[in-house]
Amino acid sequence: MDLSDLLKDMDGILIYNQGEPVIDLNFFYITKLLDSGIFEGSYLFIDKEKSVIITSELEETSAKKSNLDVRIFKKNTEKDEILKQILENKKKIGISYSTFTIKEFNNLKSKFPEIEFLDIDSKLSSFRQVKDDFEISLIKEAARIASIAAEEIINYMKEGMTENELAAYLTYILMKNGAQENAFTPIVAFGENSAEPHYFSGSRKLKKGDFVLLDFGARYRKYNSDITRTYIFGSGNDKQKRIYEVVKEAQEIGIRAIKDGKPGKDVDTEVRNFIDSTEFKGLFIHSTGHGVGLAVHDHPALSQSSDLILREGMVVTVEPGVYLKGFGGVRIEDDVLVKREGAEVLTTAPKDLIEV
Amino acid sequence: MDLSDLLKDMDGILIYNQGEPVIDLNFFYITKLLDSGIFEGSYLFIDKEKSVIITSELEETSAKKSNLDVRIFKKNTEKDEILKQILENKKKIGISYSTFTIKEFNNLKSKFPEIEFLDIDSKLSSFRQVKDDFEISLIKEAARIASIAAEEIINYMKEGMTENELAAYLTYILMKNGAQENAFTPIVAFGENSAEPHYFSGSRKLKKGDFVLLDFGARYRKYNSDITRTYIFGSGNDKQKRIYEVVKEAQEIGIRAIKDGKPGKDVDTEVRNFIDSTEFKGLFIHSTGHGVGLAVHDHPALSQSSDLILREGMVVTVEPGVYLKGFGGVRIEDDVLVKREGAEVLTTAPKDLIEV
Repeated sequence: MDLSDLLKDMDGILIYNQGEPVIDLNFFYITKLLDSGIFEGSYLFIDKEKSVIITSELEETSAKKSNLDVRIFKKNTEKDEILKQILENKKKIGISYSTFTIKEFNNLKSKFPEIEFLDIDSKLSSFRQVKDDFEISLIKEAARIASIAAEEIINYMKEGMTENELAAYLTYILMKNGAQENAFTPIVAFGENSAEPHYFSGSRKLKKGDFVLLDFGARYRKYNSDITRTYIFGSGNDKQKRIYEVVKEAQEIGIRAIKDGKPGKDVDTEVRNFIDSTEFKGLFIHSTGHGVGLAVHDHPALSQSSDLILREGMVVTVEPGVYLKGFGGVRIEDDVLVKREGAEVLTTAPKDLIEV
Repeated sequence: MDLSDLLKDMDGILIYNQGEPVIDLNFFYITKLLDSGIFEGSYLFIDKEKSVIITSELEETSAKKSNLDVRIFKKNTEKDEILKQILENKKKIGISYSTFTIKEFNNLKSKFPEIEFLDIDSKLSSFRQVKDDFEISLIKEAARIASIAAEEIINYMKEGMTENELAAYLTYILMKNGAQENAFTPIVAFGENSAEPHYFSGSRKLKKGDFVLLDFGARYRKYNSDITRTYIFGSGNDKQKRIYEVVKEAQEIGIRAIKDGKPGKDVDTEVRNFIDSTEFKGLFIHSTGHGVGLAVHDHPALSQSSDLILREGMVVTVEPGVYLKGFGGVRIEDDVLVKREGAEVLTTAPKDLIEV
C-alpha cells in the first residue's frame, strides 16, 4: 500500500483504534501487527517522514514487533502530550469517518481546534479492497484451513449430537490446523434451523434426514476466510436434493460471472435471476457476496445496492442460498480471488451433495 | 433496565448497529437478541409507546424472536423510508456518541436536518455498568464454563506441544461446555512469551520449567467471562515461585478491596502499592481490572485514570500481573460481582500454584 498519493494533500493521517467493540482495522492493516497486541485506545500517525504508534506500556512489546516508531504512554495525560507534539503546527489531517466515533471526533476537535480533519475513508477503503500478495497469502491460508475443517467435520457427525457439540469440534479442527480463532460465531444449523441465515448453534439434536448447514471461517494472522457447506445427514428427500441442486447451480453461475471489470451488482443479478426462474423465486433473501479480508464483511461487493466494479486482487464471497421457513435452507459459499479473466476459488472443499 | 427516565427529555432513542468491526452492543442489550442474528446496518428505535427493530429480510426470523415490533426492508431505499416514517415530526432524538461514527452521524443529520441528536452515551453506559439478575445469570454461566476449562486444560498439557495446539484444546473445552465461542482471541503463552501481556499464541513448544499463561474467556449468549491462570509445566524455580506468590497476594488484596461505594482507582492503588513494595516494583504495567459484560472490556473500572465508584451489581476483573522481559510473566485474573459488603468471585478455578 502506497499512502504517498494520499499524503500529497495533507500533513498526515491519524488512525485511532478505540478497541472492542469499535475497532479500526486500518490500524492493523498499516502496522502489520497481526500476531499480538490489542491496542485499545491507541493511535497511529503517518506523514511523509515517519509512521508512529502511540500506545500504552501494556502493548510496548507487541508494538515493537513492527518496523515503526513507537511512543509509549503510562497515563492518559502523557498520551495527550505525545499527540500534541506530533500534531503541532499541522493544518490538515486525514481520519477515517467510518470508524471515528462522534465522541472521539469531538475530543480531537476540542484539543486541536485549528486542525482540519479530512475524511480519508473512501481512499483507505479502496486500498483495502484490492489485496496485495502478502494479504492474499494470508487469506489463502485462512481459506485452506477452513476447507480442511469443512471436509474433516463430516467424520464427527453422529445421530443425537447437538449443534453446539459439532460447533466445538469444528472450532477445534480450525485451530488445530493453525487458525487463531473463529473468524466469527460459527453457524451450525440442523434441520429446520438451517432456514435462518444468521442462526448460531444450540441444543437441537442431529436426526436422520437433517440438513447440516455450516457457515464458519478461520482467522489466520487477523485475516479471515468465510465458507458455507450444507450436508444432508442420512439420505435426503427429493425436495432437499432439488434445493441443493438449484443453489449449487446458482453458486456456479456466480463464480463464472466474476472477473476484473465486472460490476458486483451484475453478478448478484445473474445469480438472483437464476434462482427466481425456479420454483424458489423470492427465497434468496440476502445478497450474493461481500468482500473478505481483515474484516469478515470487508466491504459490500455482490449486491443490488453495490456500485463496486470488481478488480483483480479483490477477494469476495459467492454465497447464494434458498430458505424455506420450517423446512430448512441450503447455502453454499466460497471465497474467490478476482482475476483478470475469471475467479480463483480459494475454499476448495467439495460441493457435490454429500449425504453423510 | 428502565429507559423511561431517559425518554422524559426526548422524543425517542435511536440505536444503530453498523456491524463488524463497529458494533453497538446497546442493540443487543436492549433487544435481548442473544442467540442469533448479526443485524448489520440495523436500527432500533424506542419511544414511550414502542420499540421497533428496523432490519433486512435476512434477519427477519432472528429479529422476530424478540418481543419488539419488527420492520423489514429489502432495499436501502425502503430502510430510509421506514426511518423517515418513524422519525417524522420528532424534535429530539438520543443517540450514543461513542458508537455512532462520523459518517453515520453526517448521514443522519443530512436526512433529518430538523432533528437535534443528543448524546445518551453516559446514561446508557451507567445502565450497562450495573448488571440486572438476568445479565448476572449469563455472566455467571460464562464464568462457570471458563473455570471448568481452566481446570480441565491441565490434562492436555504435554511436553513439545505448541501454544496453538493448547489453544485449540482450550477452545474445544469451552465450546463443549456451552460457550458460543471464545470471548476474545485466547492468550496461550509459554515461557518467555508470558511476559507479553497481549500475546496470542504461536508455534513455541512447551518445555519443562515453562510458565503457561492462559488468558481466555467464554462467550455465552453474547455475555463474556475473562479469566487468567498461570501454571508451571514441571517444577518451578525460586524466582518463578516468588513472582507467583507476589501476584497471588496482589490479586487477593484486590478482591478484598472491592465493595459497593469504593472508588475503582483506590482498588488499583492498593494492588499497585503492594507490588511496588516488592522487588517487582514497576513491573505491573497495566491496570488492575475492567468491567465485563456484553463487551469483554465493558467499561474502565480499576485503574488510575478511572473515576468509577463501584456499585453493587457491577462485574469487574481483578488481574494484576508481573512481567519480566525475556524471562516470563504471571497474571491471575478473576471476574467478581460487586456486592454491598464485598465481592463474589465468579471464576472459581483454583489459584494455588500448580506445577503440572
